[in-house]
Amino acid sequence: MASTLGTIFTVTTYGESHGKGVGAVVDGCPARLPLTEADIQPQLDRRRPGQNNLTTPRDESDKVSILSGVENGVTLGSPIGLFVANRDTRPSDYGNMRDVPRPSHADFTYQMKYGVRASSGGGRSSARETIGRVAAGAIAEKLLHGLHGIEIVAWVSAVGNVETTAVDPALVTRAEVDATMVRCAYGPAAEPMMAAIREAKAANDSVGGVVSCVCRGVPAGWGEPVFDKLEARLAHAMLSLPATKGFEIGSGFAGTRLRGSEHNDRFVQKGDRLGSVTNHSGGIQGGISNGEPIIMRVAFKPPATIGMPQQTADFEGHEVLLEAKGRHDPCVVPRAIPIVEAMAALVLIDCAMLQQRQQLLG
Amino acid sequence: MASTLGTIFTVTTYGESHGKGVGAVVDGCPARLPLTEADIQPQLDRRRPGQNNLTTPRDESDKVSILSGVENGVTLGSPIGLFVANRDTRPSDYGNMRDVPRPSHADFTYQMKYGVRASSGGGRSSARETIGRVAAGAIAEKLLHGLHGIEIVAWVSAVGNVETTAVDPALVTRAEVDATMVRCAYGPAAEPMMAAIREAKAANDSVGGVVSCVCRGVPAGWGEPVFDKLEARLAHAMLSLPATKGFEIGSGFAGTRLRGSEHNDRFVQKGDRLGSVTNHSGGIQGGISNGEPIIMRVAFKPPATIGMPQQTADFEGHEVLLEAKGRHDPCVVPRAIPIVEAMAALVLIDCAMLQQRQQLLG
Amino acid sequence: MASTLGTIFTVTTYGESHGKGVGAVVDGCPARLPLTEADIQPQLDRRRPGQNNLTTPRDESDKVSILSGVENGVTLGSPIGLFVANRDTRPSDYGNMRDVPRPSHADFTYQMKYGVRASSGGGRSSARETIGRVAAGAIAEKLLHGLHGIEIVAWVSAVGNVETTAVDPALVTRAEVDATMVRCAYGPAAEPMMAAIREAKAANDSVGGVVSCVCRGVPAGWGEPVFDKLEARLAHAMLSLPATKGFEIGSGFAGTRLRGSEHNDRFVQKGDRLGSVTNHSGGIQGGISNGEPIIMRVAFKPPATIGMPQQTADFEGHEVLLEAKGRHDPCVVPRAIPIVEAMAALVLIDCAMLQQRQQLLG
Amino acid sequence: MASTLGTIFTVTTYGESHGKGVGAVVDGCPARLPLTEADIQPQLDRRRPGQNNLTTPRDESDKVSILSGVENGVTLGSPIGLFVANRDTRPSDYGNMRDVPRPSHADFTYQMKYGVRASSGGGRSSARETIGRVAAGAIAEKLLHGLHGIEIVAWVSAVGNVETTAVDPALVTRAEVDATMVRCAYGPAAEPMMAAIREAKAANDSVGGVVSCVCRGVPAGWGEPVFDKLEARLAHAMLSLPATKGFEIGSGFAGTRLRGSEHNDRFVQKGDRLGSVTNHSGGIQGGISNGEPIIMRVAFKPPATIGMPQQTADFEGHEVLLEAKGRHDPCVVPRAIPIVEAMAALVLIDCAMLQQRQQLLG
Repeated sequence: MASTLGTIFTVTTYGESHGKGVGAVVDGCPARLPLTEADIQPQLDRRRPGQNNLTTPRDESDKVSILSGVENGVTLGSPIGLFVANRDTRPSDYGNMRDVPRPSHADFTYQMKYGVRASSGGGRSSARETIGRVAAGAIAEKLLHGLHGIEIVAWVSAVGNVETTAVDPALVTRAEVDATMVRCAYGPAAEPMMAAIREAKAANDSVGGVVSCVCRGVPAGWGEPVFDKLEARLAHAMLSLPATKGFEIGSGFAGTRLRGSEHNDRFVQKGDRLGSVTNHSGGIQGGISNGEPIIMRVAFKPPATIGMPQQTADFEGHEVLLEAKGRHDPCVVPRAIPIVEAMAALVLIDCAMLQQRQQLLG
Repeated sequence: MASTLGTIFTVTTYGESHGKGVGAVVDGCPARLPLTEADIQPQLDRRRPGQNNLTTPRDESDKVSILSGVENGVTLGSPIGLFVANRDTRPSDYGNMRDVPRPSHADFTYQMKYGVRASSGGGRSSARETIGRVAAGAIAEKLLHGLHGIEIVAWVSAVGNVETTAVDPALVTRAEVDATMVRCAYGPAAEPMMAAIREAKAANDSVGGVVSCVCRGVPAGWGEPVFDKLEARLAHAMLSLPATKGFEIGSGFAGTRLRGSEHNDRFVQKGDRLGSVTNHSGGIQGGISNGEPIIMRVAFKPPATIGMPQQTADFEGHEVLLEAKGRHDPCVVPRAIPIVEAMAALVLIDCAMLQQRQQLLG
Repeated sequence: MASTLGTIFTVTTYGESHGKGVGAVVDGCPARLPLTEADIQPQLDRRRPGQNNLTTPRDESDKVSILSGVENGVTLGSPIGLFVANRDTRPSDYGNMRDVPRPSHADFTYQMKYGVRASSGGGRSSARETIGRVAAGAIAEKLLHGLHGIEIVAWVSAVGNVETTAVDPALVTRAEVDATMVRCAYGPAAEPMMAAIREAKAANDSVGGVVSCVCRGVPAGWGEPVFDKLEARLAHAMLSLPATKGFEIGSGFAGTRLRGSEHNDRFVQKGDRLGSVTNHSGGIQGGISNGEPIIMRVAFKPPATIGMPQQTADFEGHEVLLEAKGRHDPCVVPRAIPIVEAMAALVLIDCAMLQQRQQLLG
Repeated sequence: MASTLGTIFTVTTYGESHGKGVGAVVDGCPARLPLTEADIQPQLDRRRPGQNNLTTPRDESDKVSILSGVENGVTLGSPIGLFVANRDTRPSDYGNMRDVPRPSHADFTYQMKYGVRASSGGGRSSARETIGRVAAGAIAEKLLHGLHGIEIVAWVSAVGNVETTAVDPALVTRAEVDATMVRCAYGPAAEPMMAAIREAKAANDSVGGVVSCVCRGVPAGWGEPVFDKLEARLAHAMLSLPATKGFEIGSGFAGTRLRGSEHNDRFVQKGDRLGSVTNHSGGIQGGISNGEPIIMRVAFKPPATIGMPQQTADFEGHEVLLEAKGRHDPCVVPRAIPIVEAMAALVLIDCAMLQQRQQLLG
């Protein structure tokens, strides 16, 4: 469904970028999970705008309120309502874009789909919608951590042409990621990445990047063949994020260049489980987790809204020179880190619950 | 759901590789669509094994029967049952694999998930399951063609290290694709691609590849934000195919290296609609089609089952040397062409139907 | 899903009786529908507690806020967030019920299901949850009215042993219904009904009743065989309301006593459509609307929470005498009227949208 | 969805009454359940036509084939394909009904919905569609029996004006039910019931009836508030059966005449669980099972197709005298017994699986 993700652990989001606020309803969370706003706020803080000079200057504290589903610090089993008010809205910034759709933005397609659109700031297509996902993801993560000690860590592996392969998915921590402002977890790469972002910003331009993500501790057996393969659901979740253009699991596109004898992950005993020597599979085979770390990459295009003048056409087809206002990120990947983690968590917890059926008869 | 794809135009598949057969139930097809087996068989013929020496020698005619939902050559509005019997099964080929999971195959994960698995040929994880998808996709395609003259064409754009960018998505036809045995649509690339496949086959090895796909004629407005963005659903559909490792829409991973000013598709009047000069967006913005061709790429890894001996471990963790039997493709991309087309069609027709709501009030 | 109703026009509700408030998210509403809080409030006013001396004295104004999905008085196509704050909560009333589950109430089953429950007022099982349904239903009704002039009218056809069959489903209006405080639309029956409620109230007891509902103007063709027959979905919707114990469509249980020759609704030309002389079918045949008025009845048991002392057992199994506090309706049917109408509207609009597929190819 | 029932244990049915056959796909069944056709056939035999002189003379053996999902006598976790061929079809019986819709039958509404319909025998609206439900239900029952020893027993509690309340839901067995040809489980009522059916049959007429059903052994805690209350799902399932007009849980419509003090089921310790003295609730409170037997009643109207001449109109609105051919049951309730049991089982197993989430964290 358009605004609902998940089969039995679901999140439904609502709210526009420049309306009253954005919210989410999380349904299917088991009862008796200890939960307060303090479990959710840290990931929202990592996502919020204005946190440093690499991001949009829009200033939002993004403090979340739990509206329902929790009493005395534990979940009740009922839907968890979550809400974050919008505060620093500036609809007036968007006056000149009423008649001119921003190139590569959702302005045009929303207008074509609905015959109307929010008058400012992208409305529902804004990355502000992801607040509900991050809040819901924090709940999913808490469940996953309690379940198997599962850890999900995302990091920036490329900004523009600056790429790093120095991060070890087996070991990287969120603390290491956050130790670099650009969230790449590897100091020597952080500087040129930040430089690339600042250069784009100075030029009133924007730049793309890649987010990598690892899920450690996922047991073998999660994911539902045929149509709900684990990698299919992860791809769906990631490509549902604004500005994404690609998804890879394990070896990805590079793996297509290998022969089977090179690509196959041969099995080997690892402690009390069967593991694999290599992990080109990215932790998933046949749509089902195999116990190795799940590793994926997500491509984010450069943001469409840029300050420099762009030659384009208005809705009537007349050529115009557009100078977009509004406050926007020159590069989305640093703030996308907690969002990617949230999406991974939301997919995994639903798969965990679906796998419970196999234990139905004990 | 595991075996069902779609929201209101749905396909449910069933059947194992070496069981009685494979089938599908297509629900939500409007009544009064002219339909016979002859509408479905051509895409199955393009998918079937044994069609030439690039594919597995397993010999299946894959003749489809319509079991329900059609009378006097037109659909009734009721679910369309489809069935293809298995004929050339050889369970005995799989004797030595009972205790040894094939590296990078689903043998291990199915066993871990279910505690049991089909004793031969991958069972449900086999590409044979895709027969139901291709059959359903042919019905979806017929609807799409009648609706807007929509054309979907996929082609092989890479085999191993051999890549071609010479195919024009705006013009390529299925006839051109099929004119090359490897289905790359570009003669000069076909030879080295076929050579790469034959070399892998001769070495008892396998090789990966990339399938590109274009959907032409899709009107602006299809796709449901937020979670059911068109590209998210396409990614889901494609990554639900066996052996896939990556998905790109439009500029994909390469687009992350561009600046916004380079990547943005500036608008321009095109006949009676607003179009764009470039198409880095791949025909989708904000999760909604924009009227330009939808262009995507899907990465297929080299098949896991190879004839050459592989050092690995059995389920008990003991080191063994596995020599896999069974009849398998050295490279899946030539036969994947109609499958990718089917998945695109299944996603698009569901989006078309969901978009009808916007016309509810006329 | 637990907290979501509908296939493509969906409503998701959240919130507990004595928490911050209750809300709903309506997804799938077409864009460009004129909509403000004023479209929604009237049905909430008919539902709200404290409106007269037949209802609970809990005093809630139940003013609804639209949080998202609407701008400048029209819908955007995005999810419509709705919220009503709780004001007159008295958790202290429920102190003595912490250890003693109210007989025939959800206290016991929530505790057994979740291992925890809201400490006061029924939490999620409270009829207060229906606020979100009524708000969503008002939007559905506006669409239905614009679509075919569809009218939905419910009335109280029985309170305890007082029954009326004098109301004509073909003609009854909401104004007539509201002209009687008990909402039975028939003056001579209203007095004894109100007397029955007041007697029960005076005795610290409660009483049950029946709500009848008609949907006029529904065109032939709505409803999806097999599992989503229109009457099946209506039954589901009505039995999802608190305190309901039965559902009838058309002739209902009384129809089982007839012979086919008596029960069959013979066809006859009515203006430009084929209609039926009688309507034992209740406007539905084979799960699909036939163009005649859709007529149903819903049984509501007497409310479980009563003031008089009840011999029962606590959670430990010890016999106790329970004297329940809290403010509760002595009879729910007068306030159930807008709720039943809302549920009917929510089912019908979803069916209307699903039927659009049959017009896909024009 | 139209042809799919269930959330995570699903059944999808297909097939028309006079086509090649009818089938079902059951998805979500756990692996390693011992299963063969012999587990399924007994309930199909209780459902099949021609079993005695109270039923239609159409002669079908209804032998089921498992097409997939089972190997070596155990389930694989993959979808279970089921198929029953049609043998004794007589499309020629329906010649005179091409232009004349049978009164109170689905002929008219299918034509209005789809603009076309199966040329004979009701097509998809035929009770023959329920074969797939009964087959799927047998699998669900086997799971439920293995899970908690749950027993589901339905019986005929009324035929026309002949009613029996002598059957004890706490004790009644299928053997007792089958000991009476009419399946009422109470000898003294069986005779007048059979007489009522035979009289209707002799008069070329039909007669309605009521099926009661009990589910024993269901633990407390099943059912998902708010919209998927257990009684709501049961009502949905039952009203999705052909010819049903009403549903009651527990006290049903009669309960509306009681006061709360009479209706409330006071709690009492029963062995190691808290039970209730009475069971007006029918085993469900707040949408969740409470551990007492779940008791429901389903109203079946007299079959629409009767042999006696009926004054009606053709599709053009012209008055005609219809003499229907075809072979039909004079009363459906004896054969509805296994169907009602199947629907109850399908709902319960899905609820059982959904409840597993509450044990996620141990």
